Amino acid sequence: MPLLIRNAKYLFSDPASVERDMDVLIDGNTIAAVGHSLTVPADAEVIDAAGCAVLPGLINTHNHLYQNFLKGIAAGIPLVPWCNDVLFPTVGVLRDAVKSNARIPWLWTALATIEMIRGGVTCCIDMDVTYAETLQVWQEMGFRGILAYTLTNRWVPAELRAAEDEMRQKTLDFIAAYHRPDELTRVFLAPSTLFLCDDDLMHWVAAQSERLDLGVQIHISETAGEVAESMQETGLRPVERLERFGLLNERLSAVHCVHIDAPEIATLAHTGANVVHCPKSNMKLADGIAPVVPLIAAGVPVAVATDGAASNDLLDMWEEMRAALLLARVSTNDAAALSPQDALRMATLDAARTARIDAGAIRPGRLADVIVVDLNRAHLQPFHAADPANMLVFCTRADDVRDTIIHGRVVMRERRIITLDEAEVLAEAVAVERELFEKRSLYAFNTR
Amino acid sequence: MPLLIRNAKYLFSDPASVERDMDVLIDGNTIAAVGHSLTVPADAEVIDAAGCAVLPGLINTHNHLYQNFLKGIAAGIPLVPWCNDVLFPTVGVLRDAVKSNARIPWLWTALATIEMIRGGVTCCIDMDVTYAETLQVWQEMGFRGILAYTLTNRWVPAELRAAEDEMRQKTLDFIAAYHRPDELTRVFLAPSTLFLCDDDLMHWVAAQSERLDLGVQIHISETAGEVAESMQETGLRPVERLERFGLLNERLSAVHCVHIDAPEIATLAHTGANVVHCPKSNMKLADGIAPVVPLIAAGVPVAVATDGAASNDLLDMWEEMRAALLLARVSTNDAAALSPQDALRMATLDAARTARIDAGAIRPGRLADVIVVDLNRAHLQPFHAADPANMLVFCTRADDVRDTIIHGRVVMRERRIITLDEAEVLAEAVAVERELFEKRSLYAFNTR
Repeated sequence: MPLLIRNAKYLFSDPASVERDMDVLIDGNTIAAVGHSLTVPADAEVIDAAGCAVLPGLINTHNHLYQNFLKGIAAGIPLVPWCNDVLFPTVGVLRDAVKSNARIPWLWTALATIEMIRGGVTCCIDMDVTYAETLQVWQEMGFRGILAYTLTNRWVPAELRAAEDEMRQKTLDFIAAYHRPDELTRVFLAPSTLFLCDDDLMHWVAAQSERLDLGVQIHISETAGEVAESMQETGLRPVERLERFGLLNERLSAVHCVHIDAPEIATLAHTGANVVHCPKSNMKLADGIAPVVPLIAAGVPVAVATDGAASNDLLDMWEEMRAALLLARVSTNDAAALSPQDALRMATLDAARTARIDAGAIRPGRLADVIVVDLNRAHLQPFHAADPANMLVFCTRADDVRDTIIHGRVVMRERRIITLDEAEVLAEAVAVERELFEKRSLYAFNTR
Repeated sequence: MPLLIRNAKYLFSDPASVERDMDVLIDGNTIAAVGHSLTVPADAEVIDAAGCAVLPGLINTHNHLYQNFLKGIAAGIPLVPWCNDVLFPTVGVLRDAVKSNARIPWLWTALATIEMIRGGVTCCIDMDVTYAETLQVWQEMGFRGILAYTLTNRWVPAELRAAEDEMRQKTLDFIAAYHRPDELTRVFLAPSTLFLCDDDLMHWVAAQSERLDLGVQIHISETAGEVAESMQETGLRPVERLERFGLLNERLSAVHCVHIDAPEIATLAHTGANVVHCPKSNMKLADGIAPVVPLIAAGVPVAVATDGAASNDLLDMWEEMRAALLLARVSTNDAAALSPQDALRMATLDAARTARIDAGAIRPGRLADVIVVDLNRAHLQPFHAADPANMLVFCTRADDVRDTIIHGRVVMRERRIITLDEAEVLAEAVAVERELFEKRSLYAFNTR
């Protein structure tokens, strides 16, 4: 059944193009037509967007969905001790528990996916703690999800690691089962960080990425310590090492890039690699400030993302876009450092390139991932018509998203998730998480 | 009629005290009792807070409410050209228009106050563009408002200024009419900045503040240029000048304090003055980063505030608390730089001291400014019980506030504003603003 979105007060086809009083016709899983007063097909479902803004769904290119079970845990700890003392023990508890209850990854995925759909996110890349149940939730809920299959063979405690051959074979099996670029779910390869993977594993990842045309996502240069260790151990900076592994190309998303220098920026630019910027997470963990302005000036596609809920702790791309803008401005001492259009592009077009999906703009032929924002709210009025992107980016909150359409299907309408029972999922997730964590000493980390 | 809030899952009496399963009894405009399973008075109105957090209303200690008519205008311009090229012409248009339509300040105040009540703000300090209609809205809506009566006699274009004697007399008349510390409305004196006021005016402000026991609010050291000019013109830094005027005491709120040095911090600390920190505004205008951590370490009460909607552009104290935390952490390279409890205190207890009201904590005898936050939402669950302040501050969004109680009166219940017709106000405000601005060249500033 075709879907017609009518009378959009503002249509943001892409960050640079805003038109008034527009219709969008969706047929199947793609956009069929965009224009004024389109003819309504006889059998069409109609969404009235009068008084609303219509824009491409936001794409959250870096996340760890299991951390929706770990919100609000252990504030005030830098990255490395936080991993050792909080994250790894917690992940251990989760992995043990999943052995007897396969519902657990289903639940954390549903929780995080509900949060994202409610905030206008139509696609995410999820790294770490990989289970097939995550992809099952996305299929059930109609969410476009990319599972970045995580690979590590160093530093992580031995009991959390699988044997190398087994890990590689399981990875290939997982890809064969779930990588469906024409449908909702995709698989990327995710060597978690350079210091968690040996050279042999990195070469294997590069070879599989090329052979199977798979995206690769990696945390890179998140802390100054990581760069110093890389220099000490190999004499090379992390981006140089990625280049030697043959990983710098348009399939790669390099997450964080906080501590990179000018030659590394130039290298990223000429190889076509993508950078993912997580401003709130970098600020919360006191990692530092990524050089977003020079990266964009050099032509590197930069996507903005929330990172996992344990270091943010919201999956709110509106607040994240603002964080990117504000941090860039204050850190460069330039009130014009990034524009609202830049921020929108980081959450749509550049994010779509990073996610390797043909979305991020509302144009005929593109994937029909579209959101409707209700502008009739006190904090969004008067909505100044002369610079709608500025108004939209600085004033929209996650709860202003009224309808979310993914792959041509309405998954939230009038603020109600229609592809599963939200209240039931919420109750079950909370009960399971309580059982796992409430009586354990993990909460002792919360000493501040 | 007494008001009983029952079964609060978490009661945040103050930032350091969280208890479970608590009731709060309100009688008249103050809190009468706090405890487990309080007896329900026969005639009490009851609010069921099961599954909710109950906390003191948030206090937004620096704002320019007329800027709710100017959201989304002119992004990407630093403070001084922004004032000259955008703000002053806009204010001129508004002042002219008010002469023929006294409804205009009523409307912008209502718009901003609705936004704040919806986000759990129960009190604000409004500086600039002073009209009696603002106080009338607050009385009608039941909002606790402080009008910081703005005084300038330098730099501002002559046509925006009144004659000096007339200005002083009007100020005193305004105070006599509207400063009612036992009711909802208060008046502060607001010499806008040192460079907008001559020494004689500053001495007059200090004398009136002492004589009438009035709060004083001033923008101070917002930009590096302001400090350099002060040094060049007077040989003194701005905080030193405030001390010489006799203004440094517990009645003062010094807004911004971005460019202050260690001796100025020590001076602020020993005199008992309050600092107001506006992180999002400072970041957006690329002013710099206020030394919040050293200020708090020195014992200076620091409140967090949104500033006006033209430089934020939300009046969202939840996002503002997070901005304060994240900016402090990344700028000091310390993931423990500020705690969530610090952020809550900056929006409640320290803000109440700054606003000179006996609120900011839920204790018998304090003013009954209380909010109820609905925790039953995907982005707030599982709500980890071991560190509720961390969870609350990092995960709550403005739209999670369900009920807002001010001065013992319920002004929003179940997300519905009950003291005026929100839809009517919104429609009227938008229509009036359109008439004022849509056809004017002011929108030409939006060139980015």
